[in-house]
Amino acid sequence: MSKQVAVILSGCGVQDGSEIYETTLTLLRLDQLGIGYRCFAPDIAQHHVVDHRRGEVVEGETRNVLTESARLARGEILPLDELAADEFDAVVLPGGFGAAKNLSTFAEAGAEMQVLDELKEVLEDFHEARKPIGLMCISPVMVPRLLGNGIAVTIGHDPGVSGAISAMGGLHRSCGVEDIVVDFEHRVVTTPAYMLATRISEAATGIFKLVDRLDELMDL
Amino acid sequence: MSKQVAVILSGCGVQDGSEIYETTLTLLRLDQLGIGYRCFAPDIAQHHVVDHRRGEVVEGETRNVLTESARLARGEILPLDELAADEFDAVVLPGGFGAAKNLSTFAEAGAEMQVLDELKEVLEDFHEARKPIGLMCISPVMVPRLLGNGIAVTIGHDPGVSGAISAMGGLHRSCGVEDIVVDFEHRVVTTPAYMLATRISEAATGIFKLVDRLDELMDL
Repeated sequence: MSKQVAVILSGCGVQDGSEIYETTLTLLRLDQLGIGYRCFAPDIAQHHVVDHRRGEVVEGETRNVLTESARLARGEILPLDELAADEFDAVVLPGGFGAAKNLSTFAEAGAEMQVLDELKEVLEDFHEARKPIGLMCISPVMVPRLLGNGIAVTIGHDPGVSGAISAMGGLHRSCGVEDIVVDFEHRVVTTPAYMLATRISEAATGIFKLVDRLDELMDL
Repeated sequence: MSKQVAVILSGCGVQDGSEIYETTLTLLRLDQLGIGYRCFAPDIAQHHVVDHRRGEVVEGETRNVLTESARLARGEILPLDELAADEFDAVVLPGGFGAAKNLSTFAEAGAEMQVLDELKEVLEDFHEARKPIGLMCISPVMVPRLLGNGIAVTIGHDPGVSGAISAMGGLHRSCGVEDIVVDFEHRVVTTPAYMLATRISEAATGIFKLVDRLDELMDL
């Protein structure tokens, strides 16, 4: 029986959902390592819909996070409330603004943000079972709210976001796009990905390192 | 000045647009090789919208191919009618049902299919300039209509699709998911990708080979 990893999505597209390349590269590396995976997303309305060509919110249009995430999972996806930590060895959250708009309220509320209850509950289960947790891009900003204080993460080196992490009780470490930050005590691995990446190959290097480290931590 | 490749998209999602993993893996490999790229898509309505979770057509919903493709290009995309073959060294068409529904009518019309005029015009320009052309998954079914008779391609080994290619005057060669078919005379490279892939790493192997071969052909 191979290792199994849960991947939690937040839509399909960097501006209002999961970052597509980050998600695809995560799945690629898991599969290259022979690790099984399953995708989950909350069955809720998106915060809004962004026209990715024009960079503008589309007034009056609504899309569902689970339905749009299904595009990114080729239809193989389950509602987040069906995710049970005891069926998986680790969990990964790709980035994209969906993490800051659909999984949390960071985009609007900053350090006053809230996280989705069902996400917090299942992440706590993974954390209490000492199963490794990977987060990339903007997703690590949720760590203080999801897992508690004093956990080292990176979102690159954006002062506004790293300041918000500190204000919520987290620890932020600056990190290059092709590297990762590992909190061994809490078994949390993070990488800046498209918080910093200007090329897809840069994002891939950091994401592959993140997945490789999760693989090692699952053995420990 | 690095080589430049045009990537033609048809939406965002395997059931009604471009296959997301095929597109991402194509861009990854181009970037890893130091090849520049730019994405294009036609500014037309999608044939339809498919709920990827349920696998059902969503009645009454319309989406634009260029706008949805922008998700897959992180907003960096141009209308297909702005693609000029003389500005690029090669062109790639990822797969997904968008190729059979938005770029052509293959999904409905089979061997009686038509292709989008603006696509045919620009592909002919690449072909006449002897610039390499890569197609994956279902996209190679368009080759007889886009480029003419007697060009060897693969879509894996689906008898219905390969039969349609033959009926339209094309040549079909069976091919494994991790391999490519190269028509050296016409400088056309194809791989089955998600016509056959059961794992993303399989698709990656074939797609990376396709991009590597295009890179070689651009030097010849």
